[in-house]
Amino acid sequence: MSSQQEEVASGIAEGAFVHPLADVEEGARIGAGTKIWRFAHVRDGSVIGEKCMLGNCTYVDAGVTIGNLVRVQNGCLIYNGVTIEDEVFLGPNMIFTNDLYPRADGRHWVIVPTRVCHGASIGANATIVCGTTIGEYAMIAAGSVVTRDVPAFALVRGNPARHVGYVCVCGAKLGDTGLPTDEPVSCVKCGRTLVLSTGDVR
Amino acid sequence: MSSQQEEVASGIAEGAFVHPLADVEEGARIGAGTKIWRFAHVRDGSVIGEKCMLGNCTYVDAGVTIGNLVRVQNGCLIYNGVTIEDEVFLGPNMIFTNDLYPRADGRHWVIVPTRVCHGASIGANATIVCGTTIGEYAMIAAGSVVTRDVPAFALVRGNPARHVGYVCVCGAKLGDTGLPTDEPVSCVKCGRTLVLSTGDVR
Amino acid sequence: MSSQQEEVASGIAEGAFVHPLADVEEGARIGAGTKIWRFAHVRDGSVIGEKCMLGNCTYVDAGVTIGNLVRVQNGCLIYNGVTIEDEVFLGPNMIFTNDLYPRADGRHWVIVPTRVCHGASIGANATIVCGTTIGEYAMIAAGSVVTRDVPAFALVRGNPARHVGYVCVCGAKLGDTGLPTDEPVSCVKCGRTLVLSTGDVR
Repeated sequence: MSSQQEEVASGIAEGAFVHPLADVEEGARIGAGTKIWRFAHVRDGSVIGEKCMLGNCTYVDAGVTIGNLVRVQNGCLIYNGVTIEDEVFLGPNMIFTNDLYPRADGRHWVIVPTRVCHGASIGANATIVCGTTIGEYAMIAAGSVVTRDVPAFALVRGNPARHVGYVCVCGAKLGDTGLPTDEPVSCVKCGRTLVLSTGDVR
Repeated sequence: MSSQQEEVASGIAEGAFVHPLADVEEGARIGAGTKIWRFAHVRDGSVIGEKCMLGNCTYVDAGVTIGNLVRVQNGCLIYNGVTIEDEVFLGPNMIFTNDLYPRADGRHWVIVPTRVCHGASIGANATIVCGTTIGEYAMIAAGSVVTRDVPAFALVRGNPARHVGYVCVCGAKLGDTGLPTDEPVSCVKCGRTLVLSTGDVR
Repeated sequence: MSSQQEEVASGIAEGAFVHPLADVEEGARIGAGTKIWRFAHVRDGSVIGEKCMLGNCTYVDAGVTIGNLVRVQNGCLIYNGVTIEDEVFLGPNMIFTNDLYPRADGRHWVIVPTRVCHGASIGANATIVCGTTIGEYAMIAAGSVVTRDVPAFALVRGNPARHVGYVCVCGAKLGDTGLPTDEPVSCVKCGRTLVLSTGDVR
């Protein structure tokens, strides 16, 4: 392990920025180039990668792992049990849960894990019920309540969220729901060609 | 009245904790063992019981009463007119309202009361429209919008929230909707036996 | 231009109030009589009118314009591209978006504008998808997700929000959905007479 990595392992990396009105606890690990803004709170025992952005009033609980190049918009709350892979977008005021049977008396409380895969986007004010996996590059529409796994590249919306189509790596809609096929689909917006069954992008 | 109770009546009880980044106004009453975290704001004229937890960025308005052993998660906003009984769980970013006809010009504004009864749980990002009563041990699913009264032990979900079943004291689902009967129901998770028509728990 | 207006153009007007725990950036313009509360953040390049109220943990992005007599409740987030006209009510934790294809990699990001017209009200925890216009005195029910334009005086609710009726200037419900007609409608609550097709109020 290089001396720089050891430094990251034990606190805030050189080149990270923490606003004076944020509170980052001593045992949190913050990667280089990451910016943490006003009234944010990052707890001891969380790991945040490089070049991330955490907006105002965000919360990162103990036990949370966040990859690189992740954008966490204002008011977003990330609880213990949640893993965020690289290049994920978490919209403002969106929220995770980590308990299927919440009660004030937390004695029998069991943390249920949730994963957001590479490149996925979760819209503003969305709610992600724990125990779900959000697939690569999936798009959760604003205000959705996600109660089931979301396939890679899927567009879901509503309460409960329903699968209504597929999106491109760039976020634009590709086509309606149906089983992902081996037929390549072209994105009108960015020109990429995607094979939904394999996730291959050309 | 004992001297300890008098102390509670006039401010923050001995044994309560207020984080230095929270703002508790002078006339608020905070019970012993209660913890109030970062960027929380508790207003003059509110009453909070013992052994409660108020998370980051929570707001307790003037005129609010909160019982004992209540958990108020991050970003939860509780407005004047709301009463929270003992052992209630208020999920992160859930919100109450207190005005059926909100307008910027608040001159003709009428506060409509809301009550959350003993042991109830309100999920993350849920919205409780004022004038409703949430029954004992009821469970409001994450992201729900509650526009009507919720019976004791009921599980409701959706926008608007619909009654889809019943839950145990421990939070686990007991059975589907229907009139509560005198037949005892057993909880698979915790083993309790419940009579839904009377609320008796064995 | 009067000397008072020049003063407003360059910062915080005399007679405005900024709580010591709020952060108003230097280039923001704040009108006289406006109050900005705890943990709020107002960015450089935003313009806020007179006699507004911005609650705790609110966020006003660069490029946002807010009129006079606007109430912005706690936790409300207003992003670049949003214009708020006079006498608008923005409920607690309600949120705007400004990007139809949000991705963590924001390189190809296009701001899509949203407008909230004179006197409209947006309920608690509502989500307004960008590119929409909320008509004069429209009422967005709490927890709604607005994905299309909302006509003047319309009441909408649900996810996605659907047009279910009309409301008066005072906020009370007037009647069910249908094309606005030339027939005057009387408000049972405040006594006003309204012609919905023209917006004339008597």
